[in-house]
Amino acid sequence: MSSPDPSHHVDLSTLPRGFRFSGICAGIKHETDREDISLLVSDSPATAAGVYTTNRVCAAPVVIDRALTPGEGFRAVAINSGNANACTGDRGLLDAKKMASTTATALGTSQDSVLVLSTGIIGEFLPMDRVISGLGQAHANLGDDAPSVVAAARGMMTTDTRPKMFTSQFMHAKKSHSLLGLAKGAAMIGPNMATMLGVVLTDVALNPDDAQRILEHVVTKTFNCISVDGHTSTNDTVLLLANGGDAEEPLHTTALSSFQDTLLQCCDSLARDIIDDGEGATHVIRIEVRGCANEQDAHEIAKAIADSPLVKTAVHGADPNWGRIVSAAGYSGIAFDPNKLVLHLNGFLLFENGGPVSFNDEKVSASIRDTRETLIELDLQSGTDHIRFYSSDLTAEYVRLNADYHT
Amino acid sequence: MSSPDPSHHVDLSTLPRGFRFSGICAGIKHETDREDISLLVSDSPATAAGVYTTNRVCAAPVVIDRALTPGEGFRAVAINSGNANACTGDRGLLDAKKMASTTATALGTSQDSVLVLSTGIIGEFLPMDRVISGLGQAHANLGDDAPSVVAAARGMMTTDTRPKMFTSQFMHAKKSHSLLGLAKGAAMIGPNMATMLGVVLTDVALNPDDAQRILEHVVTKTFNCISVDGHTSTNDTVLLLANGGDAEEPLHTTALSSFQDTLLQCCDSLARDIIDDGEGATHVIRIEVRGCANEQDAHEIAKAIADSPLVKTAVHGADPNWGRIVSAAGYSGIAFDPNKLVLHLNGFLLFENGGPVSFNDEKVSASIRDTRETLIELDLQSGTDHIRFYSSDLTAEYVRLNADYHT
Repeated sequence: MSSPDPSHHVDLSTLPRGFRFSGICAGIKHETDREDISLLVSDSPATAAGVYTTNRVCAAPVVIDRALTPGEGFRAVAINSGNANACTGDRGLLDAKKMASTTATALGTSQDSVLVLSTGIIGEFLPMDRVISGLGQAHANLGDDAPSVVAAARGMMTTDTRPKMFTSQFMHAKKSHSLLGLAKGAAMIGPNMATMLGVVLTDVALNPDDAQRILEHVVTKTFNCISVDGHTSTNDTVLLLANGGDAEEPLHTTALSSFQDTLLQCCDSLARDIIDDGEGATHVIRIEVRGCANEQDAHEIAKAIADSPLVKTAVHGADPNWGRIVSAAGYSGIAFDPNKLVLHLNGFLLFENGGPVSFNDEKVSASIRDTRETLIELDLQSGTDHIRFYSSDLTAEYVRLNADYHT
Repeated sequence: MSSPDPSHHVDLSTLPRGFRFSGICAGIKHETDREDISLLVSDSPATAAGVYTTNRVCAAPVVIDRALTPGEGFRAVAINSGNANACTGDRGLLDAKKMASTTATALGTSQDSVLVLSTGIIGEFLPMDRVISGLGQAHANLGDDAPSVVAAARGMMTTDTRPKMFTSQFMHAKKSHSLLGLAKGAAMIGPNMATMLGVVLTDVALNPDDAQRILEHVVTKTFNCISVDGHTSTNDTVLLLANGGDAEEPLHTTALSSFQDTLLQCCDSLARDIIDDGEGATHVIRIEVRGCANEQDAHEIAKAIADSPLVKTAVHGADPNWGRIVSAAGYSGIAFDPNKLVLHLNGFLLFENGGPVSFNDEKVSASIRDTRETLIELDLQSGTDHIRFYSSDLTAEYVRLNADYHT
């Protein structure tokens, strides 16, 4: 899997068949010219799978969607940004259900065929008058063209500086199919802004159980391998909707496996986009941990490095500070032999045989300073398993965005 | 246990009997006018206990001390700052042993009666010529007066802005006794600077097993309940030396329990000093987690809050952002009922019954802005166990210290 350049993966001229999109300004966000209600509609019933936050404190829409997926017969995803509908108790649950029922009524379908997503401020009730009229306006504006998709992607944004999209075309049963991924996220939170959200739409047919299984597999390798600040949100959700419908047999065996690869490419690209847009970030840090006894070990070590403020500030300062990387691996909780560790940074060998290695400090530093992506490669030499993790550097701008800008 | 004001706990006029101190400039640090070798000597053999870093990548002195403690017959602790002697392989182990043997020869004792501590740059070999001549100079300068203690405390410092000391006098067997604690630490690391170190000296007698048991108990509640950046160092060490010697019976039962309280007070004060001197910190964050089923649960929840960059920036920005605190608790991995959570910040109620509470935002914000310590109190209402944790806020100055100041 090569490191995708997101700009090469968005072609909105061919969208998955049978989906319509809209994004409109309902006045939920403070800035009235920013989209904050999005609607994604499948004209025929779709299979849906979902992966959700592991946070014990989870938002109302997560509670609702988790109970419905995996399943069949889904017609829409109703989304708002600017308010997370999290920590809002029973009233929050009623509000989320009202979002679903309002959308369902407009589409002439049942409430439980509509999934709901929210992102934004925690602990405030949704302004339901605006949400309800906004959903009506979004329904009236549904379209299947590129501007509708972009508006829908923008309607998911909080502190994101740009919409995050991915498209892919592929052949199945001698017919061309498409996949479209939309995501948002720039930190767990801007000032009170929560969450990463992702929705992937496709016009192939999938069994619910297959959809759930491959989505979980792919999310484990992508959206669960990114960290801006290590703060798991209350609202994190990734949905997969497949509307191939009755006309087609669900994918299986080789075709399913091939679709999984496409889904992986999509989610890897969107996950990297989120990191690239991380609050205040000046570097994407790609961490490859290899030679592990199992993937879970590799994940824990990569996450310790990804979350370390000292590693993140070192990258920001273009400091090839291998001691911080090696010691972060050391406190990950995973057992390994430090003498077998081999560390490369941007291709330069920095550490092996348990001791320092002589290297050209200025050259390595320049390689960090001069490129957007910093590559950290750690080999434990104790197995064959591997993981890729994305992080962003820690900058004074991140602190400013999250401290000095008071809500 | 009240929150100690460190300035009230340092009285160097009465020091534990039978100890001598020195701190001298050996030229290990770049700044030649800063002390970087310290020697703590017990004139009679002392019991010693130790608690060490859990990092898999641990420094040479940790390897050596861990093998020797708990035990009896210790005569000295030889310390250097400016170089951590970590990630230095076999040569690092030889160097650490040479520090011990050089000190032992000067004192006319055996190598394994000397403990060794190092802190500073990771991955560079100790300049042994300077270390050896420095230890000689330190031996020649030993004294039992206040300036000697201060010099010894300064010789442990790296990015610390001030020495950290604690003293206490107490009666036992109708005789006055003393305890002296020294510590260093301001982050895991300044630019490559590692570690928190602590040494507690006392003139009571302790059994090695008792000393180890109470030290572990106290460290769990103090030095293991602080976080500047969540980055566990390669060198963390806390030592307890008790030289009451043969003349006295080791403490037991009530006297031991009372000594443990004094040790707890000492370590709590030193731990708080480290946070108060955290790199770039403008606030100490005191986190009290109550109503837990057990202490480990309370610890995990407190640590998740303490390590969250979003909580730390919110405090820096005087933002009463309870959503960040509650959601950090939610991803700690500990099961709890969010509807039973009660959160106070500086005494103001911010969250209960799973939903937002109306409060005077400006008043709470002012309470954060106007005091050095921010108090976060979280009650799970699910048990009787409790923990206190100290963190510091995250500031642009922390980023500057760790990124822009290139080694």
